[in-house]
Amino acid sequence: MIQFQIDNRSTESRARAGRLTTPHGVIETPIFMPVGTAGTVKAVTPEEVRDCGAQIILGNTYHLYLRPGMDVIRLFSGLHRFMNWNGPILTDSGGFQIFSLAKISKTTETGFDFQSHIDGSRHLITPENAVDIQTTLGADIIMCLDACIPYPADENQAKEALELTTRWAGRCKTAWDVIPNRQNALFGIVQGGMFPHLRQESAEELLSLDFPGYALGGLSVGEPKDLMMEIADQSLPLLPDERPKYIMGVGTPEDLVELVALGADMFDCVMPTRNARNGQLFTGSGTINITNAKYREDTGPVDPECTCAACRNYSRAYLHHLYRSRELLAYRLNTLHNLHYYLDLMQSMRKAISADVFARFKATFYATRTPSGGDE
Amino acid sequence: MIQFQIDNRSTESRARAGRLTTPHGVIETPIFMPVGTAGTVKAVTPEEVRDCGAQIILGNTYHLYLRPGMDVIRLFSGLHRFMNWNGPILTDSGGFQIFSLAKISKTTETGFDFQSHIDGSRHLITPENAVDIQTTLGADIIMCLDACIPYPADENQAKEALELTTRWAGRCKTAWDVIPNRQNALFGIVQGGMFPHLRQESAEELLSLDFPGYALGGLSVGEPKDLMMEIADQSLPLLPDERPKYIMGVGTPEDLVELVALGADMFDCVMPTRNARNGQLFTGSGTINITNAKYREDTGPVDPECTCAACRNYSRAYLHHLYRSRELLAYRLNTLHNLHYYLDLMQSMRKAISADVFARFKATFYATRTPSGGDE
Repeated sequence: MIQFQIDNRSTESRARAGRLTTPHGVIETPIFMPVGTAGTVKAVTPEEVRDCGAQIILGNTYHLYLRPGMDVIRLFSGLHRFMNWNGPILTDSGGFQIFSLAKISKTTETGFDFQSHIDGSRHLITPENAVDIQTTLGADIIMCLDACIPYPADENQAKEALELTTRWAGRCKTAWDVIPNRQNALFGIVQGGMFPHLRQESAEELLSLDFPGYALGGLSVGEPKDLMMEIADQSLPLLPDERPKYIMGVGTPEDLVELVALGADMFDCVMPTRNARNGQLFTGSGTINITNAKYREDTGPVDPECTCAACRNYSRAYLHHLYRSRELLAYRLNTLHNLHYYLDLMQSMRKAISADVFARFKATFYATRTPSGGDE
Repeated sequence: MIQFQIDNRSTESRARAGRLTTPHGVIETPIFMPVGTAGTVKAVTPEEVRDCGAQIILGNTYHLYLRPGMDVIRLFSGLHRFMNWNGPILTDSGGFQIFSLAKISKTTETGFDFQSHIDGSRHLITPENAVDIQTTLGADIIMCLDACIPYPADENQAKEALELTTRWAGRCKTAWDVIPNRQNALFGIVQGGMFPHLRQESAEELLSLDFPGYALGGLSVGEPKDLMMEIADQSLPLLPDERPKYIMGVGTPEDLVELVALGADMFDCVMPTRNARNGQLFTGSGTINITNAKYREDTGPVDPECTCAACRNYSRAYLHHLYRSRELLAYRLNTLHNLHYYLDLMQSMRKAISADVFARFKATFYATRTPSGGDE
């Protein structure tokens, strides 16, 4: 199980600095969780992920269930030993990937009936086996199976999905309650699309099930930024203050700063790793595209302030060359840099909350980092 | 410049254990040089290459000249700082890559007139600028520009190419002789195809130019293994005993063992790195293909005897999963393992030579390692 305590609170915002104790170690919040989809944070080793400052990683149940498969995972008594990561792991339920990746997916009251995007094989994921699979994976934090909707979605669609999500949450909770020698914690996921009253309905129903932690799902699915922030602003206070609050699949550095200010504790997103593989690097002064011709002869590091392995040892010109040459090392060094940036940002926010200077932190963050400032 | 001393000789073969002092450090021979084509040993960092036991790496002049280009290399005062490798570097002359990769190549007395395989741009490489480019790259050991021939080639073709190679070697030597504050060493390359008398002619002519080291070129170009060994067996003794003897572009673990026995000191080959990226792993008991279905549930390391980072931390099942999932980490871990295997093999040979037990070493090597034994 987990324990969550709040160490410090910002008096200038709803930001809080906490400490989440899990079976595999303590996580200092607010925290960003690098995404290790298929049992590897793409392009880097677990040691490197830890060196970047990661305290917890996320695994995708959908991917791991299909490949390597649960029979292989069982041989290693879970994902930790299989991938050689001994820190905390959170797994998603697979719902979002079934929705976005599976070839054909049919949603019924029972669960998701879908075809693998890898080999077309048929599978059924129910709330009960979503809990079972994640428990077999050995994750410290597991998520309820939830029903996702596209954006935009009308109110009826959103309401139906949230009500199914609530019923599934109840079934997940029942399944989780009876796990023998249970180690993991189960989080509920608030849905309700972009409708505040549906978000409220969802939160209230989940709260009655009393989960160890809560997440906001269905954000950053294509909606305007303002709308996402409105929903988060309205929904986060609906969740119990003393429980960790996790916003799924978000977001840009600016998103993280805003959402921490609104009281969110946990995040995951493919952005730092995926963008790295596309040559986009985050820096204190903005985001740069290392493929840009201006970096061909640039002997300086990506970010002079950065202490990551890429910035300590290599120049922009070298990273530019590696990327242009499609060398495998490019993806790795870029990933190291971006993960370091994200995790360093979270750590800076935690310090600012602890010193109760979050407003000043935010002002400095925006003053130095302009979204397209890096390349200019 | 370089200095070469022979520490020990095998009394059971022509194998010798030497010590090659270069501006960037001492190399213990016999040595294998990992290939860092475009300023990176593919998939791994310089620190990792060193951790695998590498003492010297090879850079490809053709690739580096085209990309990043010499203007960029000059900004870093050479390849060492550009790629963050501070050990010895040997560069080839570019001749072989022009022959095998360039879109169109015309060989004249002057040099190679060719079109870049990257962007079609026209370039002229002469013996003089081959020396100049490699000197700008800052390599510790540079190679004469040589003319390559296909296999099979008739005697006339082989004779013409070797004679051109000899004339070019003279021009390279003249250009190298006048480099101000020269640090690097220039090696001559023996050609002559599969014709022993042409190899002899080539060696004799090069020896009269008195190079600090000599290489055998034009081997492992498609000829039968026996023929390659015959040519090496005949040619190596033609080279001065007190100079390092380098066999270019060779080979399998078995090749290295045989050629060390024949008196070769230095090797380079893409085999450990390229095969790694194809899922083929070298082990003490043979070569295995990690994509093989039998490894899906194999919880043991690739090679129980191996101390590389991949074998210490990951299972065959995990490497199988990574490779099947085309995860970037697969290429890196496989590369680390294969480089470690090759470099460990060289070190074992050096120890066997020093203890004068090379024959026993060879017997054990063949007894445990069968070419296809790993997968059986």
